[in-house]
Amino acid sequence: MTEKAVVLSSGGIDSTTAMAMAKDLGLRLFSLSFDYGQRHRCELDAARRVATALGAERHLVLKMDLAPIGGSALTDAIDVPKGRALEAMGDDIPVTYVPARNTIFLSYGLAWAEVLDANQLVIGVNALDYSGYPDCRPAFIAAFQAMANLATKAAVQQDRPIRIFTPLIRMTKAEIIRTGTSLGVDYGLTFSCYDPTADGLACGQCDSCLLRRKGFQEAGVPDPTRYMKSSFKC
Amino acid sequence: MTEKAVVLSSGGIDSTTAMAMAKDLGLRLFSLSFDYGQRHRCELDAARRVATALGAERHLVLKMDLAPIGGSALTDAIDVPKGRALEAMGDDIPVTYVPARNTIFLSYGLAWAEVLDANQLVIGVNALDYSGYPDCRPAFIAAFQAMANLATKAAVQQDRPIRIFTPLIRMTKAEIIRTGTSLGVDYGLTFSCYDPTADGLACGQCDSCLLRRKGFQEAGVPDPTRYMKSSFKC
Repeated sequence: MTEKAVVLSSGGIDSTTAMAMAKDLGLRLFSLSFDYGQRHRCELDAARRVATALGAERHLVLKMDLAPIGGSALTDAIDVPKGRALEAMGDDIPVTYVPARNTIFLSYGLAWAEVLDANQLVIGVNALDYSGYPDCRPAFIAAFQAMANLATKAAVQQDRPIRIFTPLIRMTKAEIIRTGTSLGVDYGLTFSCYDPTADGLACGQCDSCLLRRKGFQEAGVPDPTRYMKSSFKC
Repeated sequence: MTEKAVVLSSGGIDSTTAMAMAKDLGLRLFSLSFDYGQRHRCELDAARRVATALGAERHLVLKMDLAPIGGSALTDAIDVPKGRALEAMGDDIPVTYVPARNTIFLSYGLAWAEVLDANQLVIGVNALDYSGYPDCRPAFIAAFQAMANLATKAAVQQDRPIRIFTPLIRMTKAEIIRTGTSLGVDYGLTFSCYDPTADGLACGQCDSCLLRRKGFQEAGVPDPTRYMKSSFKC
């Protein structure tokens, strides 16, 4: 029987590529996105487009409210930083950090995986070209997997352990884009900006936009992103 | 400076006692409850009463929707089992198990603790008189703490690790009730039933009611619970 994978999807380059790699391995795809009060809600439309394009059997959007917890520029009225030097990313954890976000997202993914009888939980974290978040590192992922296999009925009583699959964890953004392109991913469907305009144009200056642009340049792949002053709607 | 503790509160005996023990240790209390589509929503009123009675500085109720994930009698249209033999509890994981629930709840608690600069996260799990849930065991809690201390900016960059504090983990229900009683807890404020009537009476027959009744009997403490056919409103 073909194995099932729950794939955490933000509609960005990384999770989309991770999903395409899971599909390429022959896994059945169950896409999971989160509506958590993020200011860049365009990504939810992108995640839906990606799930359809890659043939996910289901695409579930879980609504949750992280705003009462606070502490992040992605959910609070804090300005998203613009024009940061790429070299500076990774040194400090920026204000776009959402406290324990990957822990929370993976926990929901774990729950859904148990119900679906999926044995893979896919997350597109990478430890190289990232924004300095602690919950993107291999040590965190390994610890989450160890915890997860003590947490569920599936793992503890039914010998159905979960694997946290992080196919991108050692790749650069350029390698990610080249891999996805070779698998036929249409990155025009994806969305990365932390602070888009109301009609869905990317700002071009937040950390996420800057990493994305650099990735396309280094991969030698045309950048399909619609930046401010173009007419793209999400 | 007095340390802060985020306390996961269901408004039941265990979390209320754990909160009272944290208060007795001099910790500043921040109570956290979850509105997750549970059929026993009376517990949310109980959690609010308890937070007020114990002097919590804040009581936050996070709304989330676990129902789309499914897999539990507590959120789905599956009957809650009644009249199970107490000896049978702990052998099998019952249908009231919510997939990865404590993992999800602790993840939110971790996020709030980071924002509050709290270094204790209190959960009233116990591994003895419990219903057989895997995520109430010491091994799970230890693994969660290890993961948590790799997950956050606080732990990784700011030397502010979190402790998952489980004061009840080796106690029987009777010991828990005696401890809380000695600390002045009014268990009449608490609520435990998985399947109450519309006007907030406890069914008396679900696992949670059966464990609660047995606990009061064994502790030699009068049971203040309002069971079906009495007039208590939640």
